[in-house]
Amino acid sequence: MLSEQSIKELQKILGKDNVLTSKAERICYSYDATQQSFLPEVVLQPGSTEEVALVMKLANRERIPVFPRGAGSGFTGGSLPTKGGIVLCTERMNQILEIDEENLVATVEPGVVTERFQKTVEKVGLFYPPDPASLKFSTLGGNVAECAGGPRCVKYGVTKDFIIGLEVVTPTGDIITTGGPTMKGVVGYDLTKLLCGSEGTLGIITRIVIKLLPLPEAKKTMLVLFDSIDGAAQAVSAITRNKIIPTTLEFMDGRTIECVRQATDLDLPETAQAVLIIEVDGDREFLDKQANRIAEIIKPLGVVETRIATTPEESEALWQIRRSVSASLRKVNPDKFNEDICVPRSKVPEMIRKVDAIADKYQIPIVNFGHAGDGNIHVNIMVNKKVSGDIMKAEGAIKDVFKAALELGGTMSGEHGVGIAKAPYIPLEITPVAAEYMKAIKRSLDPNNILNPGKIFLDDENTAAYGE
Amino acid sequence: MLSEQSIKELQKILGKDNVLTSKAERICYSYDATQQSFLPEVVLQPGSTEEVALVMKLANRERIPVFPRGAGSGFTGGSLPTKGGIVLCTERMNQILEIDEENLVATVEPGVVTERFQKTVEKVGLFYPPDPASLKFSTLGGNVAECAGGPRCVKYGVTKDFIIGLEVVTPTGDIITTGGPTMKGVVGYDLTKLLCGSEGTLGIITRIVIKLLPLPEAKKTMLVLFDSIDGAAQAVSAITRNKIIPTTLEFMDGRTIECVRQATDLDLPETAQAVLIIEVDGDREFLDKQANRIAEIIKPLGVVETRIATTPEESEALWQIRRSVSASLRKVNPDKFNEDICVPRSKVPEMIRKVDAIADKYQIPIVNFGHAGDGNIHVNIMVNKKVSGDIMKAEGAIKDVFKAALELGGTMSGEHGVGIAKAPYIPLEITPVAAEYMKAIKRSLDPNNILNPGKIFLDDENTAAYGE
Repeated sequence: MLSEQSIKELQKILGKDNVLTSKAERICYSYDATQQSFLPEVVLQPGSTEEVALVMKLANRERIPVFPRGAGSGFTGGSLPTKGGIVLCTERMNQILEIDEENLVATVEPGVVTERFQKTVEKVGLFYPPDPASLKFSTLGGNVAECAGGPRCVKYGVTKDFIIGLEVVTPTGDIITTGGPTMKGVVGYDLTKLLCGSEGTLGIITRIVIKLLPLPEAKKTMLVLFDSIDGAAQAVSAITRNKIIPTTLEFMDGRTIECVRQATDLDLPETAQAVLIIEVDGDREFLDKQANRIAEIIKPLGVVETRIATTPEESEALWQIRRSVSASLRKVNPDKFNEDICVPRSKVPEMIRKVDAIADKYQIPIVNFGHAGDGNIHVNIMVNKKVSGDIMKAEGAIKDVFKAALELGGTMSGEHGVGIAKAPYIPLEITPVAAEYMKAIKRSLDPNNILNPGKIFLDDENTAAYGE
Repeated sequence: MLSEQSIKELQKILGKDNVLTSKAERICYSYDATQQSFLPEVVLQPGSTEEVALVMKLANRERIPVFPRGAGSGFTGGSLPTKGGIVLCTERMNQILEIDEENLVATVEPGVVTERFQKTVEKVGLFYPPDPASLKFSTLGGNVAECAGGPRCVKYGVTKDFIIGLEVVTPTGDIITTGGPTMKGVVGYDLTKLLCGSEGTLGIITRIVIKLLPLPEAKKTMLVLFDSIDGAAQAVSAITRNKIIPTTLEFMDGRTIECVRQATDLDLPETAQAVLIIEVDGDREFLDKQANRIAEIIKPLGVVETRIATTPEESEALWQIRRSVSASLRKVNPDKFNEDICVPRSKVPEMIRKVDAIADKYQIPIVNFGHAGDGNIHVNIMVNKKVSGDIMKAEGAIKDVFKAALELGGTMSGEHGVGIAKAPYIPLEITPVAAEYMKAIKRSLDPNNILNPGKIFLDDENTAAYGE
């Protein structure tokens, strides 16, 4: 438990207004997109790196766990204060500090909302590709901590690929910088990439140096309806096999289409059993050629209809179909377990068949959509938590889905991370010796296990002291 | 010292032929491109991951340092057996295990020579961009360990950006795999990127999973002669500022041109005080447009002549000028210190001015060329080691060059790494707390300090036992 003295000290460091102790306030920071909830003892909203460092020093001295948090939009509980203690929220550190147009590099604070950053750099002709579905509210700090993905990663890579430097408060309260604004740099270990995707367990990100690209001149969006799921899945493989990497290659299965059809008035004929949304970007003159080449490659694979947007508005209308998916799923069942397995691209057809078999086995609806272009499928296991047995079915199905992905050379998570949701399944993917190598790093950097304890790896018995 | 018993045990593990103990053989593995030499006690040529693991177990038991080595072509002594002990050379593990054309992924052993790999994947229309100057003899394992660069990194990124999975023998002799063949993956810490560029201090790479790209349809090479170094440097900035990222943007200063002119019969007029070699690649029709746009941007900056290759042979002829640089430098002085600082691209003109001032200060010739497109300049400090005082001048100049790069937000090394050559300068770039964070990782993974000890960071007094 946090002592009154500690609270006073925190108020002194941060200012009273930035130390939230009322239950109402703490509840606001108790949950994330997993809809699980753990009440923190206090919520801190630091305004500077130095304040974060002082908090970490105090937390080490008093052995209080600290749970860093961006917007709390994560799907695996990475920011949940599972042991009470301190939620350290970066929302006040939300400045875009510099956009260096000469070097195509930006420097931001962690609390900057992703979409705001994207729109700001686009105004000066620059481009930050990573586009997690949460981009309207998730923060860049959270995106870096989880190594967020999104549809455009097929062509451009994930968050990590754009992060070239960080300022970080270490688990013991020191301030370090990693990497920097240069395009190359090999002095010392690459802490930047180690911290990306470390889910707030190895340091608190207080500043981010981001590599940008020139904004592509134009883009072209196509929506392709297939008469079978197999045709669509084969199309994904065929496009890659033909050495074309589109900007996005989004996939929706028959059940997803059904949901959207029922929930919206979007035009999706009954014959469509699968949808691909394919976008290409680049030089204007080049796009028609590439779009035509793609249309030609996929033509023999059971295409019912191809719609090609000719204006930004038409492109937006096509994307609307994809964007309406999440809300539409409730038509199937009120609750969902949203997994984000990733397999080698060519294994997408086989993965979909395996998921269908799992749905049959457990007699539970599973809806598949997502970023098929990089093999990252969102497998949505739809349940009604109020129906007895549904949760147990879902748990069995989840484990089978993970095993199926791993059998195909894939991973349990392409972009959501592990957090607490997938921590119990870690042994399926990571061998004990590899896990030990990772945990040795964590122990060496966070000897008191203060920073986001119990995430990624389940607590070892001897470290699970505070709040249990 | 290695006991006779240990040698016998090693012979049993590897087979007698793969345990080299004669002085003549050991001398062959005693040096690298730094031309420093340290005699190992034994050279091992393992043929499998399991053999590497057994060697590491023995080395830990007997406390013998192990120095992993690819082709020994490094510029900073990363593979030098500075404490004697074991050189573990990966040259026998040289198989390209798989080229997965459907998924654009290859799996190789560490001893595969980079150029051989590039040519092999190009035959099936695929592309591995990283192209260190040593590619004809350096190995992929060494490239990964050092995070090698090259001219094409301007557009495509460095070695690390293409490595998505590894098999590694840990410093304590366990075998782990990291990452895998998927385009996304966020389960656990990103050990793959941590190991890239860790200079053989955190694990021995025994297998590499590589992301490939579709081979660009065509490329176009231009050689541009400028009447001043400032014009060329400004051109680099101007191209980036105009949101164009060419494939390569190579730079040679006046002194470099002078060397090439004297050493070869290549056509380089006296009026040329700087050269840029600019290459663009991609869709054939798009290349003319991009080349013309570049020509237009740089025109006002003192262009003496622009040569554009229209055939692969002409392109090769233009590159010949760049390739002849290293050999030509001997015209200035017999010995060189080749540093590879990297600054933000826009700072290249200022960096060049600073280097000129340093050359004046120490009255020593400094020749600059390299990958200006990503701010990575090879600063060649030319000395005659036989002339008294030259080495001391060079040491002063090197330190000033590093300081100048760091003042401009740069780094001491863009692609060569730290090894032993730059280890003494680490405190210039990395703060004590950041160094401690890195060293804590090393200590936790290599508790007996067996693997490549004394590299990157100078030995702490209490760890410098063996062979000193």
